[in-house]
Amino acid sequence: MSEFIAPLERLVECFQRLPGIGRKSAVRMAFATLELEDSRAAEFADAILSAKRDIRRCVCCFNLSESELCPICSDGTRDHATICVVEDTRALMSIERVREYHGLYHVLGGVLSPMDGIGPDQLTVKELVARCSDGETQEVIIATNPTVEGETTAMYITKLLKPFGVKVSRLAYGVPVGGDLEFADEVTLYRAIEGRKTL
Amino acid sequence: MSEFIAPLERLVECFQRLPGIGRKSAVRMAFATLELEDSRAAEFADAILSAKRDIRRCVCCFNLSESELCPICSDGTRDHATICVVEDTRALMSIERVREYHGLYHVLGGVLSPMDGIGPDQLTVKELVARCSDGETQEVIIATNPTVEGETTAMYITKLLKPFGVKVSRLAYGVPVGGDLEFADEVTLYRAIEGRKTL
Repeated sequence: MSEFIAPLERLVECFQRLPGIGRKSAVRMAFATLELEDSRAAEFADAILSAKRDIRRCVCCFNLSESELCPICSDGTRDHATICVVEDTRALMSIERVREYHGLYHVLGGVLSPMDGIGPDQLTVKELVARCSDGETQEVIIATNPTVEGETTAMYITKLLKPFGVKVSRLAYGVPVGGDLEFADEVTLYRAIEGRKTL
Repeated sequence: MSEFIAPLERLVECFQRLPGIGRKSAVRMAFATLELEDSRAAEFADAILSAKRDIRRCVCCFNLSESELCPICSDGTRDHATICVVEDTRALMSIERVREYHGLYHVLGGVLSPMDGIGPDQLTVKELVARCSDGETQEVIIATNPTVEGETTAMYITKLLKPFGVKVSRLAYGVPVGGDLEFADEVTLYRAIEGRKTL
């Protein structure tokens, strides 16, 4: 006999499949779901289905979108000559929240990671190259995460895009604003010194 | 414009309604749900609906159940003369995990809390009294949480059950096994001294 009655156990297992959700959190959430009003629970189930059904990838930048082109790609007021390359939609949204970047994006769908079998063909690298060969693109800002894989991917893309004569740049490294030097790791500090700016 | 496209925002809001889930966790879970396979997502939505539809309260003890009587109440091998009173199903399951208690349960559905408008009528107190008046019940173990409300509820129930001549007991208080006396609070230590056992 499993710990819970079958319908509850199934719900717990569904919650447990989400990353970072252990058994205890899953149980707590399953019980909370049981205590939702019927209409709220129906809404929850429908939200899951409709998110899967109605959300697709923008044909241009691979951002999440309800229509063929995402709101950013179809926005005529944005700078269509600049493309910011990100790993995923969450990174894109982090940059959007700053409200300082007005160009387009390109969502890679991950980073190169041969150990996990992720090569250029598993990412949207080919599509990025196609976009850069249209003559309209002038600058590509690579904003992959500051990890080994993110770095490798940035280098790889830089090499690929060089022939097209577009300017390729990378986000600046340094100490985070509001941080404490005492807690900055050596590599970050080294990069911060290396990238120092004259005042 | 909201931060996310509409179907995603709706899903984030649904996750956020669960207790203890903030905006960031809800966003993480919504993205993870988007990345589930279609069949897994359908399963998730269905698990929510069927949990709401198929799970009800046992007519005897108010434990969660798929049928009229829960598996514990309908188990003839259990001791039907003992009833353990718990606040909710999660407490019941904690006690079941110990595998040392073989009696029945009674799920109160909360504790007395006049400040929140919860009186005896909002709990299953009347039904507990009815069960104890059947002559079969010999002992009631009150296992409400060791909080002010849990204590009050225990006292209240004890008073109600006295006339029926059933033995009413309460879980022992003391220092938790594996704990450190240094970190035990005064009240717990006082109760541990008060309840000391001769070796």
